[in-house]
Amino acid sequence: MQKVKKKEPTALETLKDLISRNREFDIIDLFSDMHPADIADLIDELEEEDRLHLFSLLDVDKASDVILELSDTSREQLIEDLSNEKLTDIIEEMDSDDKADIIAELSDDQAKAVLEAIEPEESQEVQELLKYADDTAGGIMQSELVSVRKDATINDAFQAVADAKDEIENIHNIFVVDETDKLIGTVPLQSIITTKRFTPILDIIDEDIPSVLHDMDQEEVARLFKKYDLVSIGVVDNQQRLLGRITIDDVVDAIQEETSEDIYRIAGLGEDDTVFNNTTESVKKRLPWLYLNLITALASVLVIGFFEETIKLMVALVFFMPVVAGLGGNAGSQTLTLIVRGMALGEITFENAKRALFRQIAVGIANGIAVGIVIGIIAYFWKGIPILGLILGLAMIISIFTGTLVGALIPLALKRLKLDPALGSHIFLTAFTDAFGFLTFLGLATIFLKIFHL
Amino acid sequence: MQKVKKKEPTALETLKDLISRNREFDIIDLFSDMHPADIADLIDELEEEDRLHLFSLLDVDKASDVILELSDTSREQLIEDLSNEKLTDIIEEMDSDDKADIIAELSDDQAKAVLEAIEPEESQEVQELLKYADDTAGGIMQSELVSVRKDATINDAFQAVADAKDEIENIHNIFVVDETDKLIGTVPLQSIITTKRFTPILDIIDEDIPSVLHDMDQEEVARLFKKYDLVSIGVVDNQQRLLGRITIDDVVDAIQEETSEDIYRIAGLGEDDTVFNNTTESVKKRLPWLYLNLITALASVLVIGFFEETIKLMVALVFFMPVVAGLGGNAGSQTLTLIVRGMALGEITFENAKRALFRQIAVGIANGIAVGIVIGIIAYFWKGIPILGLILGLAMIISIFTGTLVGALIPLALKRLKLDPALGSHIFLTAFTDAFGFLTFLGLATIFLKIFHL
Repeated sequence: MQKVKKKEPTALETLKDLISRNREFDIIDLFSDMHPADIADLIDELEEEDRLHLFSLLDVDKASDVILELSDTSREQLIEDLSNEKLTDIIEEMDSDDKADIIAELSDDQAKAVLEAIEPEESQEVQELLKYADDTAGGIMQSELVSVRKDATINDAFQAVADAKDEIENIHNIFVVDETDKLIGTVPLQSIITTKRFTPILDIIDEDIPSVLHDMDQEEVARLFKKYDLVSIGVVDNQQRLLGRITIDDVVDAIQEETSEDIYRIAGLGEDDTVFNNTTESVKKRLPWLYLNLITALASVLVIGFFEETIKLMVALVFFMPVVAGLGGNAGSQTLTLIVRGMALGEITFENAKRALFRQIAVGIANGIAVGIVIGIIAYFWKGIPILGLILGLAMIISIFTGTLVGALIPLALKRLKLDPALGSHIFLTAFTDAFGFLTFLGLATIFLKIFHL
Repeated sequence: MQKVKKKEPTALETLKDLISRNREFDIIDLFSDMHPADIADLIDELEEEDRLHLFSLLDVDKASDVILELSDTSREQLIEDLSNEKLTDIIEEMDSDDKADIIAELSDDQAKAVLEAIEPEESQEVQELLKYADDTAGGIMQSELVSVRKDATINDAFQAVADAKDEIENIHNIFVVDETDKLIGTVPLQSIITTKRFTPILDIIDEDIPSVLHDMDQEEVARLFKKYDLVSIGVVDNQQRLLGRITIDDVVDAIQEETSEDIYRIAGLGEDDTVFNNTTESVKKRLPWLYLNLITALASVLVIGFFEETIKLMVALVFFMPVVAGLGGNAGSQTLTLIVRGMALGEITFENAKRALFRQIAVGIANGIAVGIVIGIIAYFWKGIPILGLILGLAMIISIFTGTLVGALIPLALKRLKLDPALGSHIFLTAFTDAFGFLTFLGLATIFLKIFHL
């Protein structure tokens, strides 16, 4: 990576220099040798006013690759500024899945204009794809694929690949269908190369390779790719008719997207938040979560309010309140994170969840006792109040145990309710562990202080 | 997925039934039609004592595929129980990268025995691979690949693929090297199929496709795959000599592994923790983080201790302490999560970090004011103490602003120190936001109470 890292800033500096000197031909020359993904990285780094200018220097073919690789922010801005004609030319160069994705990002007027301007056949194809939900197999599939009938020979398969040469990239498999277009199986290119030319394709077909229904969640699709080490998969309708294919590059994007979503939800963030959003957007996205946090935090205010008298009796209790709540929260967040991630990876299902839950209960008890004893002793020696050590130790055991248990239960319950398990975010977990921690700690203190008439 | 989901429990029930009736031949029959990954899933679900028995029913070829797909826990257990001879037979069937991975998991005695028992050439190949660190390009590459010299024709390339037929799976590209084995470029199978047989390979070679150095971090490798939509990449030494190749399936595994590591580190968890670990293991892995948390939490105890007199003057302050600390912590964790994830995806670099940081400062101020005003008003009306509302509102603004800023600074600073940005976990962040939140809130209270002689 040293190579790339040292080169990129230089390319950016060169580019900025060329822009300042208005050397358009040199810029075109610089771009001509570069990969679209690298050009996109450069354009992303420029000031907003330079982006459209630079982008307009690209020929249509390259522009169509580059626009797909831009960051969401720069792409949105470019799309707003481009004329409908230019946009149509660029979109016509794309694969069907990318066409659909971009058109979905357009304003209603732009989308209508583009769909009317591109070829009718393509327009219909895209409108078919746009029917599928974003995060399903249909939403990430493309219509471009190579298929042959089941009575074809290897030679026919060769011919089919040759025919598709200019139209379709990334051919890894050939799909085999029957006369009603039902998917029967797939043949990797590797097998075609190593088989005699007039062998029937049915002789080398792999019928075990799974296909997916168009409405399968993209997370499930990703799991299948990972489980069976696939590079592409056929997408079928309810009659097993072949609709399109999903390639691994789109699956990798889907994995990253789903993972970010999980991580962001755990932390209480909107899914499309980034640190480069402008301030108003970021505030709009994060403030609702903070207000939610504020409401849940008021539970703690209420709980502590009950114990005003106890606190007045022993102010030293206040010093340790955050310790009880904080450790309960962190123990819970350890478990919650493990369960949410395990579910995302498909390792935790309802079948084995009970085993997971029992283990978490045991871990909660053990960790609770281990931390409780230590903090009890610390508090005793530090403040010289034996009863404080006892109360704190006991409260800590209960708090860590409960935190661990609730950290496991929240995502399992959400999943059972068919909600996203990651929604059981830190905000809800810590609201609970805070309020419950204070209740246990101050409650125990009230009882003990009464018993010992302090 | 309905199909698979409904089938799996049934297969497990069938299997358990067959085990209880000791129907070995039926089990062999059941397994013969199944994909190794599905067999592995079933074995994972069984009781420990049944796993070895079932596994021993598989022929060597299938056993070698299945063992790679098992969960870490079941694989460890199986490896312990298998004889060195059986283990050697199974390992001999694997690709070089899998061989190296499994041998790295063996005890020293087992590894030595297996390396001595497999063919000398293979043994040397594996020992070469074992030299590379786990999380580098060398650590995830395999030696099996198809390459031709630069003076080859398409026909030679066909022959090379045919020769590799039984040895190498997942051929997507052919690597082209010069006489000193230096990598010159790659040719996708698709191009070979669509080009005339006696064309020189150099005519269709793609020299733009990047290769990676053996010591590149696997996270960087994954980013290249994603950026350039690759399915395989050549790995070279410092002289650009071809050492092996990395295929997309290993990259997907690497992405999942690195992401889990990030998520776990943010939450204060060891990387290989799972909810299925036995209790002792889990406690061993999580307790150190909780003790660390305990130590950092003592900072808050100290801070609050300074303000004993202030608290005695106005016990109502205690009610709102967790609100100030909690919201500062959550605002910080929003930013921290965005930055850590952005870095993992390669979207945040040092070049654009300053822009990100300035935006976070603005967001911190805006969110702080928005929440501060609301909580100030709530506190005033709830407790009827105007000064409490003022103190709380101001403290909240400072606390949310600081939390947001520190949430951004921690991962950036760690990255600058060449440490994992995710290590700036919630534990450190909340230790800071807690202590600082209490300091601001109680400090302001002390000052205001003095000024107004309360």
